Amino acid sequence: MTQRIAIIGASGYTGAELIRLIATHPSFEIKALAANSKAGQTMAQVFPHLRHLDLPALVTWEEIDFDGIDLCFCALPHKTSQEVISKLPGHLKIVDLSADFRLRDPADYGKWYGNPHAAEEMQKEAVYGLTEFYRDDIRGARLVAGTGCNAATGQFALRPLISAGVIGLDDIILDLKCGVSGAGRSLKENLLHAELSEGTNAYAVGGTHRHLGEFDQEFSKLAGRDVRVQFTPHLLPMNRGILATAYVSGEADAVHDALTRAYADEPFLEVLPMGETPSTHHVRGSNFCHIGVTGDRIPGRAIVVAALDNLTKGSSGQAVQNANLMLGVDETAGLMLAPCFP
Amino acid sequence: MTQRIAIIGASGYTGAELIRLIATHPSFEIKALAANSKAGQTMAQVFPHLRHLDLPALVTWEEIDFDGIDLCFCALPHKTSQEVISKLPGHLKIVDLSADFRLRDPADYGKWYGNPHAAEEMQKEAVYGLTEFYRDDIRGARLVAGTGCNAATGQFALRPLISAGVIGLDDIILDLKCGVSGAGRSLKENLLHAELSEGTNAYAVGGTHRHLGEFDQEFSKLAGRDVRVQFTPHLLPMNRGILATAYVSGEADAVHDALTRAYADEPFLEVLPMGETPSTHHVRGSNFCHIGVTGDRIPGRAIVVAALDNLTKGSSGQAVQNANLMLGVDETAGLMLAPCFP
Amino acid sequence: MTQRIAIIGASGYTGAELIRLIATHPSFEIKALAANSKAGQTMAQVFPHLRHLDLPALVTWEEIDFDGIDLCFCALPHKTSQEVISKLPGHLKIVDLSADFRLRDPADYGKWYGNPHAAEEMQKEAVYGLTEFYRDDIRGARLVAGTGCNAATGQFALRPLISAGVIGLDDIILDLKCGVSGAGRSLKENLLHAELSEGTNAYAVGGTHRHLGEFDQEFSKLAGRDVRVQFTPHLLPMNRGILATAYVSGEADAVHDALTRAYADEPFLEVLPMGETPSTHHVRGSNFCHIGVTGDRIPGRAIVVAALDNLTKGSSGQAVQNANLMLGVDETAGLMLAPCFP
Amino acid sequence: MTQRIAIIGASGYTGAELIRLIATHPSFEIKALAANSKAGQTMAQVFPHLRHLDLPALVTWEEIDFDGIDLCFCALPHKTSQEVISKLPGHLKIVDLSADFRLRDPADYGKWYGNPHAAEEMQKEAVYGLTEFYRDDIRGARLVAGTGCNAATGQFALRPLISAGVIGLDDIILDLKCGVSGAGRSLKENLLHAELSEGTNAYAVGGTHRHLGEFDQEFSKLAGRDVRVQFTPHLLPMNRGILATAYVSGEADAVHDALTRAYADEPFLEVLPMGETPSTHHVRGSNFCHIGVTGDRIPGRAIVVAALDNLTKGSSGQAVQNANLMLGVDETAGLMLAPCFP
Repeated sequence: MTQRIAIIGASGYTGAELIRLIATHPSFEIKALAANSKAGQTMAQVFPHLRHLDLPALVTWEEIDFDGIDLCFCALPHKTSQEVISKLPGHLKIVDLSADFRLRDPADYGKWYGNPHAAEEMQKEAVYGLTEFYRDDIRGARLVAGTGCNAATGQFALRPLISAGVIGLDDIILDLKCGVSGAGRSLKENLLHAELSEGTNAYAVGGTHRHLGEFDQEFSKLAGRDVRVQFTPHLLPMNRGILATAYVSGEADAVHDALTRAYADEPFLEVLPMGETPSTHHVRGSNFCHIGVTGDRIPGRAIVVAALDNLTKGSSGQAVQNANLMLGVDETAGLMLAPCFP
Repeated sequence: MTQRIAIIGASGYTGAELIRLIATHPSFEIKALAANSKAGQTMAQVFPHLRHLDLPALVTWEEIDFDGIDLCFCALPHKTSQEVISKLPGHLKIVDLSADFRLRDPADYGKWYGNPHAAEEMQKEAVYGLTEFYRDDIRGARLVAGTGCNAATGQFALRPLISAGVIGLDDIILDLKCGVSGAGRSLKENLLHAELSEGTNAYAVGGTHRHLGEFDQEFSKLAGRDVRVQFTPHLLPMNRGILATAYVSGEADAVHDALTRAYADEPFLEVLPMGETPSTHHVRGSNFCHIGVTGDRIPGRAIVVAALDNLTKGSSGQAVQNANLMLGVDETAGLMLAPCFP
Repeated sequence: MTQRIAIIGASGYTGAELIRLIATHPSFEIKALAANSKAGQTMAQVFPHLRHLDLPALVTWEEIDFDGIDLCFCALPHKTSQEVISKLPGHLKIVDLSADFRLRDPADYGKWYGNPHAAEEMQKEAVYGLTEFYRDDIRGARLVAGTGCNAATGQFALRPLISAGVIGLDDIILDLKCGVSGAGRSLKENLLHAELSEGTNAYAVGGTHRHLGEFDQEFSKLAGRDVRVQFTPHLLPMNRGILATAYVSGEADAVHDALTRAYADEPFLEVLPMGETPSTHHVRGSNFCHIGVTGDRIPGRAIVVAALDNLTKGSSGQAVQNANLMLGVDETAGLMLAPCFP
Repeated sequence: MTQRIAIIGASGYTGAELIRLIATHPSFEIKALAANSKAGQTMAQVFPHLRHLDLPALVTWEEIDFDGIDLCFCALPHKTSQEVISKLPGHLKIVDLSADFRLRDPADYGKWYGNPHAAEEMQKEAVYGLTEFYRDDIRGARLVAGTGCNAATGQFALRPLISAGVIGLDDIILDLKCGVSGAGRSLKENLLHAELSEGTNAYAVGGTHRHLGEFDQEFSKLAGRDVRVQFTPHLLPMNRGILATAYVSGEADAVHDALTRAYADEPFLEVLPMGETPSTHHVRGSNFCHIGVTGDRIPGRAIVVAALDNLTKGSSGQAVQNANLMLGVDETAGLMLAPCFP
């Protein structure tokens, strides 16, 4: 049975990535595309790489007739997203890719995003969209909140270790290396090719990145106590990919074992043989996440490295995976595209 | 019905690209993978981006039992390819990705490749694999010779113009901009990141590039007279993509019209609206070729620009497209992957 | 004797490149830096790579006391530049890096730039700043108009050939490959890393690029008749560098000979041995231009390839070279920095 | 007075970088260049970006007449370096860029490099070449051992903190992001553009990188007790640059203060204002190192980030700086080149 899909916010990178994935999805059909700032344009104008597809032209989201839609992806900026979603019809299943429904406590949202939440009631029914850990809730959810791409990467590396109790909770360090598409299609000086290529820098240093709200929420819930990690993202001269290097105290064998067992049946999470390290090259354009574990020369210290594509497994691929669950479709439908290397 | 596939030369980039495409092909199944220099290794070792696939380990091509194989892709270097192919069993359908069977006249082969042809008899039955122009021959062929990636790009831009007689034949200039994966996974100093990134240069300047053998053969056949184009490739700091800029004498409207009519029903060849120009960004990782036409300020001069992905439409995607025809499968099967942008 | 220098438009890439070069210039001292949109900021804020230098803070150009200035570089956008320059004091030597005084005929300016010229009187005294060909005029000039970076590259490849009468004038084709810094520090979607890296496209196709005004003016003057070249620029995923591939009719030996003789005593123009081709990698960050000549397999056709760094020899290096002449300093002062490779 | 310079190992990247720097050095003159594998070639053939220089052709090192040489840079691979240096004449001042004389204890050398030291006697007189910390010893030395590029970056970030006692010594983590030129001009698959661009990975994970030998030696000596840091390098798609992110326990203010005081008079080490972070973009091609400090949201934790160019401040620039000291020349001579941005 064909599922009728709408996308709001189709003119950004996560919107384009949703369309790329749905283009070869066996049971999804795109019925409406909205981008208020570019309403009236065709997708071929906004994203020429999608010109071969027979897609509806862009409209404003208010123009969409949601009666004929089964599920709506919302790929808007945070704050705008909650305002729009709160006005969508109640029958509609929604996968939100913004930050607006990720934090369960509206006070946390206010703290990290700087504005009061405009749809607190809807927050209560939102399910956190880290598929592999909230699968059952997602199946029955009406509103799923996609995770931050950095937050997903770090959690894939660390959640099973916290659950299994094989690492210390007070000295976790997450050093992330991030491709630039995570910043979206926004016109900022530091995102220009001339400013970014052939160099790197840290940003949001010192515990100010908003995805820390997710780490705090999720790791603390898992551990049953407050957990505060150190997290420093770095901007790299590449378009796609996040590599998370996690420094933990714990025995590497126990760490590797906990990950291997946790992900044994996961179609998209691959734990490498002990001592091997993943590369973002090898997951580019795909929904896979590769994870490697190595022990350090210092006894009792281990390094866990996780690699995924921020636009796919980190956002739009995750969103499709969640939509599959919500619509009763095979969870991997449309998502088995092999990584594009080189 | 599942088609049983073997790949010889699976450890190079075109081999990996074949596997990437076949990974989501609805009716192909990989039964054997050969790479004599890496026999005994797994594909996860040779190409970690394919580790999620359940693939046979690498063997030598001599070890393959071809009784259980319907079609064999041969992605070997030229010269080696003809030696191996001449020893393969006669029932086997073969798509060769090397240069060995592209030139119909063995003397041309000797001239451009510097060694006598070792399988002249087989050359006689080989069909030139530019799908859109040899479709009927390919359907019935046992051996199809994949084209050069540069040769494909230039021909997509120019063949309909020569056929329609809308351009002059004596002053065609093809200036190509090529990504580095076309050079394969070979260890050469000029292919190192440190030597290649952030700069560009021409190579094989002056009419020495081997793909000229294909241009000469095909354009002369089409025109019914000798045609010799000027062709200069340039190496660009990017992994995938060829952009061909063709300078021709002719009226832009007639040029655009000839291309539009020729490709009206082609699933992979997209002619842009008059005056628009394509980008390799917008075909990356896909089997599509975008073509644009612009008139020059100088009356009677036009510019045709064609963009494709050298690993996909320029070689492995073309190979799968040809294999689909040879095996009676839908021509686009496995090839509708949307380009991966950004 | 120290020459006192001011730079107006110091917050753009050509402004920063001027400062980089002057940083190790033996007799220039920067006395004032203006950037009206960033007045009040320090250069360390605007360009952190210059933080080790003891530079004046940014002011508006109106705040500069020009009594203490010997020469002023003006690195403003076109149109703004002529408005500002027309108000500068009459004693001041000026090197303008914009397009405003390049075209001698104000009608040409209006045609290519779309607005009437606001300082026609000053245009009359402006000298075209292609140093190697206007050296004597530049020495005595008060106002020198820096050339377009593409215009410089094409002229280095072609001027001696037109002068020597060794090529045809009616079928010259210039195919340029350009790094992105030529577009400046402007916030445009197509200049984002995510849009630009790993791909290429043509732009201003069909004879619409403004640097054609310079080609027309200079080549026609040289030839004593109208000359109209075909010129297509391409945007490449690299920050610095222009590679010009010129397709001409003529004998390669005569072409090589004309270039070799013309540039025999030039400190910055290097003609490679016959048959060798230059690379933008090998001139990056320097004031050098490398030029190579190759004959084509088609008799009577030759290819000339020129490579330079658009920010150095193509604009700010040329500007310093001209300033050296205007101030009676050794022409190469501050400009012998070796290219930065890799 | 002109200092007569020889370079052994001139065909690698650090050799080329030495020549680039010496090209505008006011008192160094290159008298001999050796590269045994490329003896007989010119530097224009081996490194075309140096073609404008009037350089001696490459010879074997055995052919050099060292009587006319004041100082010799040795840019050979480790192991080869000690064999060659042990045969050089006793009067010669030597700056070695290899790893061969960095570790004072030959047992340490054997442990990290896997072969016994072939010149233990010479090791005794070698001075560790981290200029800012061994300045006086270097002035009087005959043999100076250049540091590892990673080792230099980490030490610039951490030495003053260990000396001042403002950080804990048992939980130091160094996460490094490294450009590819640090791996040299070697033909390895993972250094190909197609394998490296647009992605990243960790390597030598778990405490196996050889530069740890230097960290252990130097930090332990400073602290007066054994110090073992965790150090994980990552390969980034960029040619030049190292960014070291150091995670330490300590008060950020005290950390910033210790660095600021230690480097107050250093010409090449720039401590940024509290809370700012450096970028490798802003030191590219220069001898500068930028260092930033930020406190974490977790009390008592700080992050120190250091950025330098591995080929300049990390090796060849450091080597020239040391040579300046050894020859009684101004320490900054030839090294004030501004970074090349963009």
